[in-house]
Amino acid sequence: MRITFCCTDTASEPWLQGLRAALPGAEVDLWAPGASPADYAVVWAPPQQFFDEQVQLKAVFNIGAGVDALLKLNVPPQALIVRLDDAGMSVQMAEYVCHAVIRHFREFDGYEADTRQGKWSFRKPRVRADCPVGVMGLGVLGERVARALAQFEFPVNGWSRSPRVPGDWVTERSAPCPPPALRAPPLPAQNALSPSHLEGVKCFSGAEGFKDFLAASRVLVCLLPLTPDTRDIMNHEHLSRLRPGGYVINVARGAHLVEEDLLALLDSGHLAGATLDVFRTEPLPTGHPFWTHPKITVTPHTSARTLRSESIAQIAGKIAALQRGEPLAGVVDRAQGY
Amino acid sequence: MRITFCCTDTASEPWLQGLRAALPGAEVDLWAPGASPADYAVVWAPPQQFFDEQVQLKAVFNIGAGVDALLKLNVPPQALIVRLDDAGMSVQMAEYVCHAVIRHFREFDGYEADTRQGKWSFRKPRVRADCPVGVMGLGVLGERVARALAQFEFPVNGWSRSPRVPGDWVTERSAPCPPPALRAPPLPAQNALSPSHLEGVKCFSGAEGFKDFLAASRVLVCLLPLTPDTRDIMNHEHLSRLRPGGYVINVARGAHLVEEDLLALLDSGHLAGATLDVFRTEPLPTGHPFWTHPKITVTPHTSARTLRSESIAQIAGKIAALQRGEPLAGVVDRAQGY
Repeated sequence: MRITFCCTDTASEPWLQGLRAALPGAEVDLWAPGASPADYAVVWAPPQQFFDEQVQLKAVFNIGAGVDALLKLNVPPQALIVRLDDAGMSVQMAEYVCHAVIRHFREFDGYEADTRQGKWSFRKPRVRADCPVGVMGLGVLGERVARALAQFEFPVNGWSRSPRVPGDWVTERSAPCPPPALRAPPLPAQNALSPSHLEGVKCFSGAEGFKDFLAASRVLVCLLPLTPDTRDIMNHEHLSRLRPGGYVINVARGAHLVEEDLLALLDSGHLAGATLDVFRTEPLPTGHPFWTHPKITVTPHTSARTLRSESIAQIAGKIAALQRGEPLAGVVDRAQGY
Repeated sequence: MRITFCCTDTASEPWLQGLRAALPGAEVDLWAPGASPADYAVVWAPPQQFFDEQVQLKAVFNIGAGVDALLKLNVPPQALIVRLDDAGMSVQMAEYVCHAVIRHFREFDGYEADTRQGKWSFRKPRVRADCPVGVMGLGVLGERVARALAQFEFPVNGWSRSPRVPGDWVTERSAPCPPPALRAPPLPAQNALSPSHLEGVKCFSGAEGFKDFLAASRVLVCLLPLTPDTRDIMNHEHLSRLRPGGYVINVARGAHLVEEDLLALLDSGHLAGATLDVFRTEPLPTGHPFWTHPKITVTPHTSARTLRSESIAQIAGKIAALQRGEPLAGVVDRAQGY
């Protein structure tokens, strides 16, 4: 078995060593133009040339949760595209989002400004029932975030494209896997696998549920995959539907948010603030108004980092499952975009 | 039934109205010197004169979790002293502590300093397994905080005076209650009621377990009651036992912490920082070094505020239980001090 590794912006050697240790029978090499055809690829933002040459891949493992960048490339049609399901990312997302929500709800920013001036003063506590949090996207990450918020007794609303059906939850979407010798079959419709109702979370779904979801939420958390349907979803019309004094947390992709609409609604006072980890252009350009806006907290796409050892273990496990012809979690539906 | 209300630093009228609405059969009045003897008292930091006059009280309800200030007064010996068990405070504590731990662990302070300079830069993520959090005090608040931290997959250690015995957990300590017509009997030893082992939390107890608890922890959270045994517990000797790069979070009482020992260990680098909500003198005096110390975050005793409506409902429920002669949760053992 041959595995090729092609990840930009990543130190290759520890990954290669880790994959070799986890898959002792495999040849694991750093990709270079003209390399021999491999069975499996581990990638992050590879060039198109990579896929033009590696036409025999059985599966491509993306070392991140979002595959929007990968799906812009021509990936050989028979190759399964597999994303990281969790690999230590969901707990990071839960941390990041809970930290941002609590910081807003408890006005810790305001307290810090007070104490910088040596001022000991109380703020009237906000009422928890008046601070419902809406989580867009109820995949592995969104579910974990929604559950974490519910633990702090916030009213939590969840929105997903397809409805969650009680009693039918699968933690990971799975797709049947071909016997190792065969090409991959067409992927099944992922929607056929229905995630369940979430304890403590009021679930909404589809276009028809979206307006009600927004109207029921004051804090909005975006954990959606980026697809043509979700691009620009946080625009003026939709953000206006949030309860007054709304707060936006984007930990998905920059293109989910129409930046000038956010700024306009912060200026009008309809929105109280935002915590943003992702941007339409990254790194966030010098001079961009988000850097200095008093109501916006910026972090450099650090909400959930890929953890190497967890990711290697997961990819190795999935390759072994593929070799045994077992079904696989985290397979991307190319038509759906996630 | 007569109820007297004597709370300094609190707007009385909403409390009086709330208690009257919750206990329609009772006479509820604001205390003034020379007032008629009452059956029950609702207090926060009353003057000694209050107890000198109100010698027939059956029970005194403290509208806070800590009774250290109350126990400095001469409270009539037959009166049960009852603290708020939770009344919305434990979730606030969980929020405050999780926010502080995540902020430290994820270096959000550092990221904010970077973005203030328009700097997009990554920090090597800290390793969760290297960041065990130790919670001192495993009462209602400590237990909630420990569970909340465990949800974020931090290794969590808990320390309590008496051991937690598996399978024998009672959420609230309870004491038998006298028939309404009788004086209160002597209080039982609270230690006889053993709290249980906590899922996901490694429990230590007693003086013999304390050193191991400290050595196993890098972040230290104080949620102890203030008693002669716990005063100054966070001193140079004990804080030195934390793992290097330790972090201190005090949400209990200022007198738990020896301030100059904290400063010395921050200066030496053994401790990385502290988040402090309580102080030996409150408000924190002007010019106190904590105000401006770059490694210390100060908040004005706001980690868990008494929520009026929840507290009134709890006190009314307890008065009704006392009237029916039922056992009561949250009764303070005066000898033990909590």
